[in-house]
Amino acid sequence: MKQKLAVIGAGSWGTALAVVLADNGHDVRLVARRQSQVDEINQLHTNEKYLGQVQLPESLTAYLEMEEAVRDADAIILVVPSKAMRETVQGLVAILEQPVPIIHASKGIEPNTYKRVSEVIEDAAAGSPHVASITVLSGPSHAEEVALRQPTTVTVASRTESAAAYAQELFMNQQFRVYTNPDLIGVEIGGALKNIIALVCGVTNGLGYGDNTKAAIMTRGLTEISRLGVHMGAQPLTFSGLTGLGDLIVTCTSVHSRNWRAGHMLGKGKSMEEVLEEMGMVVEGIRTTQAAYELAKKENINMPLTEALYAVLFNGVDPIKAAEDLMGRVKRNEVEELYHLD
Amino acid sequence: MKQKLAVIGAGSWGTALAVVLADNGHDVRLVARRQSQVDEINQLHTNEKYLGQVQLPESLTAYLEMEEAVRDADAIILVVPSKAMRETVQGLVAILEQPVPIIHASKGIEPNTYKRVSEVIEDAAAGSPHVASITVLSGPSHAEEVALRQPTTVTVASRTESAAAYAQELFMNQQFRVYTNPDLIGVEIGGALKNIIALVCGVTNGLGYGDNTKAAIMTRGLTEISRLGVHMGAQPLTFSGLTGLGDLIVTCTSVHSRNWRAGHMLGKGKSMEEVLEEMGMVVEGIRTTQAAYELAKKENINMPLTEALYAVLFNGVDPIKAAEDLMGRVKRNEVEELYHLD
Repeated sequence: MKQKLAVIGAGSWGTALAVVLADNGHDVRLVARRQSQVDEINQLHTNEKYLGQVQLPESLTAYLEMEEAVRDADAIILVVPSKAMRETVQGLVAILEQPVPIIHASKGIEPNTYKRVSEVIEDAAAGSPHVASITVLSGPSHAEEVALRQPTTVTVASRTESAAAYAQELFMNQQFRVYTNPDLIGVEIGGALKNIIALVCGVTNGLGYGDNTKAAIMTRGLTEISRLGVHMGAQPLTFSGLTGLGDLIVTCTSVHSRNWRAGHMLGKGKSMEEVLEEMGMVVEGIRTTQAAYELAKKENINMPLTEALYAVLFNGVDPIKAAEDLMGRVKRNEVEELYHLD
Repeated sequence: MKQKLAVIGAGSWGTALAVVLADNGHDVRLVARRQSQVDEINQLHTNEKYLGQVQLPESLTAYLEMEEAVRDADAIILVVPSKAMRETVQGLVAILEQPVPIIHASKGIEPNTYKRVSEVIEDAAAGSPHVASITVLSGPSHAEEVALRQPTTVTVASRTESAAAYAQELFMNQQFRVYTNPDLIGVEIGGALKNIIALVCGVTNGLGYGDNTKAAIMTRGLTEISRLGVHMGAQPLTFSGLTGLGDLIVTCTSVHSRNWRAGHMLGKGKSMEEVLEEMGMVVEGIRTTQAAYELAKKENINMPLTEALYAVLFNGVDPIKAAEDLMGRVKRNEVEELYHLD
């Protein structure tokens, strides 16, 4: 059934998801932040800064004003940086006139509050009757490949089965396979924390370490993500799925990954400030590292990779020194290493 | 303590392990199959066909005759293709005059018998009093990177803690970190079966699919490996470690992987016979696919990726058709998909 859908955020991922929805025959309004980008999407049907030469469906219409796009929408898809989520939702609930399901595809943990994205949305909505449900969409998915209709699998999770099934119905097609999973906490935590491990993989690659090191870091990384996640109420099995292991793989093993590239520059000796300036795009993993580091300290969870990266990012520790410290750790039994808690 | 060690098999992995042992100060005898290779290693200190330009330690000595190399050896390291293991061990026990620990670093499951490599060794040794213990060494480790002293982590597993600890002691150094794990079954199965998934990743890449597809296959692949492994008596946790997830990552995400490259050629339209001829090296995953497919059928274990690859390799099914069938599968809940058993 054809739906009116507003996609808020015209970065690479928001635009790619809008393409999927337009392919499925929905009436899709994509909200961008700059007039020039709105014009480019509506007239040239490209979004070159974020998706290069990909040709967008002509049925996809861009808007500058969120208010126009969400008017009479059947559902809203939020794809803004996690840092902008709170403000975006506050603006949204002020203009919504009907109850709508919200689907988000953003990845992060909020520093200080340690809230997951759906919790931030709930918090910012402050009991508004117009937020009918909150669902997350996550999984191993480079935006460029999705926009090129490459076979992709993702997961949707929500508190109610019906909300997840609705999101699945909207997005599912032959190339874009959507699975449901009842574990909202695990899906959101896996997607957020894998960016930390991608940064670490980038750093060690920048230092000149090879694939053997990368595989060891990803293996240890998934363990420490799961450890924090399970402590926060996630199901362990979710971390073996698309939004845990799957997303970790795609983010850590591709030079297209923004977080990996930022880490790579750090490994080559640049400071966090220089990296952020050169990227010119949001690097979610940096903010997530801060939140996860603080949360792990508070909850007394062992996260050696997160701690090492935090030291490099925020305390100016030399990446070479941090890597040597990690390698020199003394545990000698693998099972003990995987589950050691101090 | 300095040991006399015979490494049987001078392919890339045997040679790289011999380099680690020589670095650790042991007296290392490396057994090669051709006189020209023995001469190259002893005179030029290279093994160009298998390790390119890597300079080998001068203390590393190559032998043509296994008998000379194993005479008075304190331990024997077997790194021959799994297909050659039975015959090699039969030859070995016929000449051994003292009880020695055996460490193997080979990956495979024997068709027809479905035996793991350590079981094949035990079988072939036929109760010989000269096999003191059998230990496996496995983990995410491109041989080239190990020979270049890149940071690498591996696992050793044996039936007794003392045998694993001895192997750990022999190999451990600053760049080559060795962990012990009591789960011999899980370590051997993970190492063998990941080659199936690497072949599948190669095939889909050859067909033109991207990183999103690869991540989905690796995620599903680890699940089906674990499923068979647990059925055979492995500990589930082992598949989340270096010899499961770690080795899967290094094999599936690197163009250096022999199994991945073979799969890539299949995806480009070559037949299994053409691929084997072009490779000129053993592709363990092909033989393992046959064994795993037959075993899964016999034990009624659901292994969709293994089945699809088997159909391509042995029944001439078009890889495009096999991939479409996999994508079109109807399950819609991720947890059900991960653990569905029929």
